[in-house]
Parts: sequence; C-alpha cells; structure tokens
Amino acid sequence: MMEPKRDIRATMEVLRKLFIMPDSPDKFVAFGHELLEMIHEFFREKGGIHSSISLPELSEIFSRTAVPAQPMLIKDVLGEIKEEVIAHSVKVGNPYYIGHMISPTPYFMILLEMIIAALNQNQVKIETAKASSFVEKELVTWFHRLVFGRTDRFYEKNVQNPRVSLGNITSDGTLANLTALAVAREKAFPPEGGFGGIRREGMARGLAHYGCRRAVVFVSARGHYSIIKAANLLGIGSENVVSVPVDRDNRMDVAKLRRRIRALEPDERIMAVVGIAGTTETGNIDDLESLAGISRETGAHFHVDACWGGSVLLVDEYRPMFRGIESADSVSIDAHKLLYCPMTMGLILFKSERDLNQLKHTSNYIIRRNSVDTGRFTIEGSRPFAALKPWAALKILGKQGYRLLFESARKNTAAFQGLLEANGSFEVMNRPELFIVNYRFLPREARECLSGLRGDRPEGFLRRFNRLINALNIKLHKALRREDTTFVSRTTLESTRYRPQRIVVLRAVLANPLTDRDVLEGIVRTHGRIGLDLWREFEPAFRKLLG
Amino acid sequence: MMEPKRDIRATMEVLRKLFIMPDSPDKFVAFGHELLEMIHEFFREKGGIHSSISLPELSEIFSRTAVPAQPMLIKDVLGEIKEEVIAHSVKVGNPYYIGHMISPTPYFMILLEMIIAALNQNQVKIETAKASSFVEKELVTWFHRLVFGRTDRFYEKNVQNPRVSLGNITSDGTLANLTALAVAREKAFPPEGGFGGIRREGMARGLAHYGCRRAVVFVSARGHYSIIKAANLLGIGSENVVSVPVDRDNRMDVAKLRRRIRALEPDERIMAVVGIAGTTETGNIDDLESLAGISRETGAHFHVDACWGGSVLLVDEYRPMFRGIESADSVSIDAHKLLYCPMTMGLILFKSERDLNQLKHTSNYIIRRNSVDTGRFTIEGSRPFAALKPWAALKILGKQGYRLLFESARKNTAAFQGLLEANGSFEVMNRPELFIVNYRFLPREARECLSGLRGDRPEGFLRRFNRLINALNIKLHKALRREDTTFVSRTTLESTRYRPQRIVVLRAVLANPLTDRDVLEGIVRTHGRIGLDLWREFEPAFRKLLG
Repeated sequence: MMEPKRDIRATMEVLRKLFIMPDSPDKFVAFGHELLEMIHEFFREKGGIHSSISLPELSEIFSRTAVPAQPMLIKDVLGEIKEEVIAHSVKVGNPYYIGHMISPTPYFMILLEMIIAALNQNQVKIETAKASSFVEKELVTWFHRLVFGRTDRFYEKNVQNPRVSLGNITSDGTLANLTALAVAREKAFPPEGGFGGIRREGMARGLAHYGCRRAVVFVSARGHYSIIKAANLLGIGSENVVSVPVDRDNRMDVAKLRRRIRALEPDERIMAVVGIAGTTETGNIDDLESLAGISRETGAHFHVDACWGGSVLLVDEYRPMFRGIESADSVSIDAHKLLYCPMTMGLILFKSERDLNQLKHTSNYIIRRNSVDTGRFTIEGSRPFAALKPWAALKILGKQGYRLLFESARKNTAAFQGLLEANGSFEVMNRPELFIVNYRFLPREARECLSGLRGDRPEGFLRRFNRLINALNIKLHKALRREDTTFVSRTTLESTRYRPQRIVVLRAVLANPLTDRDVLEGIVRTHGRIGLDLWREFEPAFRKLLG
Repeated sequence: MMEPKRDIRATMEVLRKLFIMPDSPDKFVAFGHELLEMIHEFFREKGGIHSSISLPELSEIFSRTAVPAQPMLIKDVLGEIKEEVIAHSVKVGNPYYIGHMISPTPYFMILLEMIIAALNQNQVKIETAKASSFVEKELVTWFHRLVFGRTDRFYEKNVQNPRVSLGNITSDGTLANLTALAVAREKAFPPEGGFGGIRREGMARGLAHYGCRRAVVFVSARGHYSIIKAANLLGIGSENVVSVPVDRDNRMDVAKLRRRIRALEPDERIMAVVGIAGTTETGNIDDLESLAGISRETGAHFHVDACWGGSVLLVDEYRPMFRGIESADSVSIDAHKLLYCPMTMGLILFKSERDLNQLKHTSNYIIRRNSVDTGRFTIEGSRPFAALKPWAALKILGKQGYRLLFESARKNTAAFQGLLEANGSFEVMNRPELFIVNYRFLPREARECLSGLRGDRPEGFLRRFNRLINALNIKLHKALRREDTTFVSRTTLESTRYRPQRIVVLRAVLANPLTDRDVLEGIVRTHGRIGLDLWREFEPAFRKLLG
C-alpha cells in the first residue's frame, strides 16, 4: 500500500487497486489466514476472558483525538489491531464464557460476511439489491410460517408479493420491537374522519381525536428495556408502559393483568400487550395463550418479544412451550442469538400481511410509490444484506442442525443446574426453560440455617439474611471478574421465593456449543472455591445475625 | 460438513467443530479465495449491471416457503449462492454504476469484516465489548473534532470519558437523524416543575404542559425522507415537518425560512432546524451559517444531516463549503457513503457532551447505572463492532488517501458535466457541489427551439414542452435499465430553472474511484445514442407542439 512521504500524486493508481479485489490475492489470502489463526488462538486461551488490562490503561491506548494524517501500511494497521484490539477483546467464544446471549459463530459465517461486504448491496431498494431482496423475503416467509403457520396458499401468494411485507429485517431486536409498537400505535389510533393518523398528525392529536388521556402498553416486570425505549421514542411515554408483576416462574401474572385492565378508565386506551418468549434475565416464557385471549378481548395489538427464544421454534418438540404465539399480531426474533449469526440482525414478523402498510412511506428518488423496494416498510434506511447469514445457515445446518445445537444447550442447562444443586453451596433461583439459570452462592452453613427457619427467628431476620447474601454475591461476581477464567453475569430479581425482596443472582446463559459438562464442572468448582474464600469475610456478620 | 441422511446423533462433534475456526484452515482459505475471485470477476464484467433476470423469474427461484429440514454441504450452499445470489446481484462496484451513493469498497474492508465477525463483540456493554468500546469512542472523537473543532482540552478530557458521550455509532443515517431529533424533542420540552419530560410522560403531556399546539421541524424541500420518518416515529407528525423551498442551487431559501418562523403562532414551538450538507438528490449544501444563526435566535436545536457530505471535512480545502457546521448542535455522517465502508454504519455527533444524556437509560441486567457501557446512550440495543471499519480505514488511507479519493470524485464530476455540455444533447440541471450531477436528455433540436423562446410562443408552451421532455427522460431511464451496461438514477426536481414545474432528471453520483474519463465518455455516448433513438418516437408530438 501507500507509504508515508511518498509523492502523493503518484498514488491514486495504488488507491484504485485497493478497490479491486483481490489485486494481490496471495497476500490477501495470507492476511486472511493469519487473522483466522490469530482469532482462533485467542478464543482457545483459557484464562483472561476479559483481558487483564484495566479500563484506564485502555483509555490511554485509545486517546488519540485527531484523525491520522499520513497513511499506514495495511500490515501495520492489522498488527496494531492484533495487539491492541483483538488482545483486549472479550472472549465471547470461549466455552467458559456463559454470561450473556452471545457465543462463537460457525466459521462459515465469516465466508458469508466476505460475500456480503464484497457485494455491498444496499437492501433499501431493488436498484441497489436485486437477488438479495428476494432472499430477504424468502427468509421472512420461512420464519413467518414457523411462527404463524398460515396456509400454503397464503405463503405461496405472499412469499414474493411486492405489494405487502410479512416482516422486516432490522438491525437488532430493539428496532424489531420498535417497529411492532409503531404499528400498534397506528392501529390503536387509526385515521378516521377529520383525523389523518398519528404518523401524520402526531401523538397529541391522536389522543385528542379519540378522547383519550393516555395510551397504555402492558408488559411483565421481566420486559426488556427496549419496550421502554420504544415507548419513549414513540411519544407514548415510559410511565405508560405498565409493568405487570410476574409469578414465581417469571411469567406475567395473568390475573393481575386482567385486574389492571379492568381498572382502566374509559379515556385510557390499550395500545399493546407484550408477551415474552424467553425473558432476558431468566429465559422463561409468558403464558402466551392467555395473553392472546386478553388481547383479542380488548382489541389490543399482541406483540411477542421472542428475540431470545423465537428461533427454538425450528424444533417441533419445543413448540408446546410457545403455545399461543401463533395468535400474536407481531413477533420479534434475533438472528445473533439462537441462530448463532454474528452481531447483529433482528427480524420482526406480522401475522397480517397488511399490518406493515401502517408504516409504508415513499420518496421520489429512492423508494418510488409503485416500486417493489423493501425500504418502503422499514424504519432503517440503508441496510446491509445481513439476511444472507441466517438464510445460508438454515440451509447448511437445516432444522436438524439447530435441533442438535438446542439439544446441547438444553443438556448443558440441565447439567449446570444439577451441578449447582449437587454442590451444596448454591441455590438455583429459577425454573430454567430456555437455557438460562439464575442462582446464587449460599454456603452450606447459611443454607442449613435457612432451611431450619421456622419462625423462631425475630421478624426481619430473613430480610437481613438475604441482604447479607446479596452483598456476598455482588462481591463474588466482582471477584470472578477479577479472576477472569470464567464468566457469568449478574442481575437482581424480585420474583424469587423470597419475594418481594430483591435478590442478587448470578445468571448463566448456556447457549455456547463449545461448553460441555467438564467445562461446567470447572465453572462450579471455581465459583465454589472463590465463594468460600469470600464467605470468611462475611462469617462474623452472619454469626452476629444469628445472635 | 454434515451430509443428509447420516445418523444425526453422530454429528454434534462435527457441528461443534464448525464453531472452532479454522478447523480445516486450508479448505477455509480455499473457499475464501474462490469467493473473492468470483466476486472480482463479477464486478469486472462490463454489462449486466442489474443482471438480465426478470423479477418474476427471481420470485420463482426464491419461492421456497418453509425452512429446509435437512442440512446441506457448505460447498453446495456456496455454489447456490454463487449461481442464484451473486449472479443476480447489482454490480454496485462496476465503474459504469454511477446511480447511487454506493460503490466498491477497498479490499481490506473484507479483512476487517472477518475480524468483526470472528470476534463477535456486542457493543452494547463493556462485558461483551472491551477494547472495541474504546475504539468506538476514539473514532467518534476524531469526527467530533473534524466537525466542531473544540479545544484540545475538551477532547483530552472526553475522548474516553465514560460519563458522557460525544456521539453514537448507529446502524445507518436514518437512525442517526432519529437520534438527533429525539434529543431535540427532549430539549424543546424539558422536564420542569410537575412535568417529568416527554420520554417519561409522552408527547401529548409535553405539548400540554408548555401550552403548545404543535412542535415544528424545518427542513428544506431537499430533505431526506428519514426526517419525515423520524417525525412520524417521535409522535410529532409528518405534517409538522415544514418543507422550506430551496433556491436555484437547491439550498434552503433562508428568507423564506425567516418568513415562516415569523408566521408561527405563540403556541407553535420550533423543535429543530435541519440543514443539509450534501442533499441526496443534488449534492448541494445549505447555507449552514445562516441556519445556525436563525437556530440560535429562536432557541431551536440545529441539526445538520451530513450523511452524504460530512466525510469530506477530512480534507481542509472543502471546509469553506461547510461554513457554519461547527455551530450545529448535532451532525450525522454515514460511513458507508464517502468513507467507502461496506453497508452500513452511521454516526451521530453532538456538539455538547451533555446532549446525549437526554436519552440515557439503564437496566439492571445489561447496562447498570454506574456502568461505562456505550449502550446507555443508543437507540439500538445490540450493535456490531462496525466502528472498526472506518477507524482502520482512516489509519490505512489517512487524510491523504481520502483527499485523493475526493479529488478523483471531484474530477469525475467536472468531467461528466463537461462531457454532457459538450455533447449538445443534454442539459445540466444543478450546480454540482458534492459529486452529484442532475441532467436530462434534451436533443439539439429541442434545445435550440428552447433557446430561441422569446414569448412568441403561446402561454403554456414551455409547460407542455417540459412535460414532453419529462416523458422522454422517463422512457430513456427505463431503456437504459433494459440495456443495462450503465446505471444512473432518476428523480424529479421542482427547483430547476423551470421552477415551479417539476422536471424529471437523471442523477449521477460520481464517487466510484474506478470510474474515469473513458468510462464517463462511454456513459454519455450510450445515453446519447439511446436518447436519440427514443426521440424519433417523440418527434411527431414535438412537431405538433411547435404548431
């Protein structure tokens, strides 16, 4: 490539060659090979999941405040990326990383990313994305059918029908949920008579026209924060997202939802009921069938946030857990979660092929009225050909391949739960459904005191006890982060057997196919060892509590 | 990989290996090499920019309505992608493709995509993105400095300051503009006294609290449709986006803006004034300095949509065109446009490091209150490490490299304009600023009749004349699409010398560094030849018009 200080007028030819690939294919292939080896090695290293470098040290490295003036050699920049970026990345592919909804991706995804970048299609319109527009619609149809199971005739008619859209490819689940609620808002306050619709006239005029004081969205206490963000953005207001308490299994309490609906004043209108199919914190699934019924009765849009769990519908055995999802008006699914695609791609599906017309827009120069451009229906404008990844992955792996991956996740979930219970120093805090286990460290001694608890303890004992154990688990989580050979995340739940007290729990997401029983044994052993070490600090306070 | 019909219980090991890369590095590298050769060849083919296949034929190919059950070999799927997807993609990298803001990307982008996919970091939080969070902040700082040029001290303090954000990486320019207007909305109706802010209480309560009937956004008639979409989503309503007419150079008419502002009632509040630095249709830049002054006087948020042109600030010589941009409150820039990154990445910058606090949100399990997670400020949730691409590109190319690329674009723009004018059968319809030329086919004969026009023609002659030429140019554009060896786009402008009549124009975007004078000569020749052929059909009507 260009070298600094060379005569600048001589280099446009060199630059132009950079845009023609592969101009020096051998060098390119060698680079590619080296990069893969490097990343492979990086993921294989057992420790240092987050790298030991401190945030202030990283701040120091990345503290250049102006754009570089002089060009650098590609190999030098790749060297810098290797030493300063890759080395200090998070090993999300490491089998001991079981803390978030992220994992390694199959290596063919890298080939697909190469194709996507080299083709550089822009999905917004057919003039910049031809076959890729059709691939997108086919992929959307596959998932629509999985979720809603409408008739053969419906799918044959609509798979490539340019006049409608069964769903959108979005940049992530948050945009998918936003799309669903934007449609729900239009449907709740439709244009009529002198009112041109909320999109045209705004939220205030919509409420005024219908004599409403507020539009309400119901979601459980386990709802993802993207629902709140959507309500913020849409001008609904986060205080109009009503958080319905959950039962012990982290499912929306349907009786409480009914009570809240009955308590609404005539000038409060339900815009949407949101069910969850795999809550982010606990992996549990709402009673979708009941929520569908309530939505139908009240005329509300029923959206299911299945960003985490939706892909599991690929395997028939799991379908009963999702009963009722086929009655939803819209369903969101993330490809970068259980489809094992790289970051990021979301999918929003609408049961009715007409719902996305609520968002339809056109412009002279980019998406003309009579065009077949997919951009007519999306919130985003320019969009990459991300759909190639799940489309090809579903072909390469097939339903059979995904069945094996989910079976591995299910087994790991059961194994982890079993290992925690057998260890004697942990308390499992949820009934795992979709590969997520919530638990806390509770040393045998404390556990025994608890199981003997019979009311002979003074009032407030349990609350103080849990407060102590909460502190212990926060400390344990921090210590695990420092030790850095394993990774789980942490949250706080009000829905455990100690409700309504808020309990600090560790959270393991068992989706990484490289994780196995041996790895899980190692994780439980490490947690137990570090937990017991910490317990010594807490014992005096514990004794005092016992009195 | 797996083969259909093999015993499924035997394949989890095979599957697991897919997640470890490169398990068979030679095969992988061979695949990669082959793919690149294929795409390179594909771009090199001169004709068939959009492939000759018809949309119904494509519908036929991609009409499978259910997820494949059986796995397929990777090489078979890649073969299918080659024959059915790549072959029918749009050759956006071809030098004769000058129709949209899209181009080939330097080949090192593919290496960067490999790194991004393999590392699979999720930028939402530090636990899933360590060094990459710092790279993002550094990149944002570089652009912030380019645009706003605040003090060294400001940048040293904030480049890695986790308490604030100078801007967000977004999925595209539409999301960048949406972010800017979401912030503007909060600032126009801030929390006070009994009012908790629009995000919390909704749009209707915000208007009511401030005694406002409506919130208004001003943007020129050349505004991108994403501004309308943002107003839709934010509950402002598209009819409250006031389209201000432009002058003959497609810049917002500042006098008309002032007049409209003076005409506002006391219960109408200006939420934002939007300037454009490189309109999508014509590439022209608003008088940002005047708009900044007006925004300051009225207390409105001043947003500049520089999605197209903002990157040009990398080169000092272009800076005078953008005078006033440093007074903006926010500026959006797309990396997949003039930074030549693959689809897609946007950037939204805020002059004040405190503005993004308007959108700050947290949740227990993902972005805790005291965290340093970048997800606290973004509309999107999960986000890919897209920032690596412009960050590395700016190092590899340096300002010097981009200067050459923009110089090439400028020269091609001038050359194309010159060739059109010299040909005699074209009329250039804009004063090109940022690499976009609007023109129409106007055969010599028609042109001469027009230049002789002195009022000796009956009233309405010009209008009928232009209607005829509009029809001719629509037909020409369609014929060019059929011929398919070149590509320009088409739009309709009310702002030409024939204003207010709407004129159909062809639109060339001269950003592809592989395009040169020879190519442009070929394009003009092709357009001229096909145009003259079509003109024969129009001549009788033209004669009749002349009477």
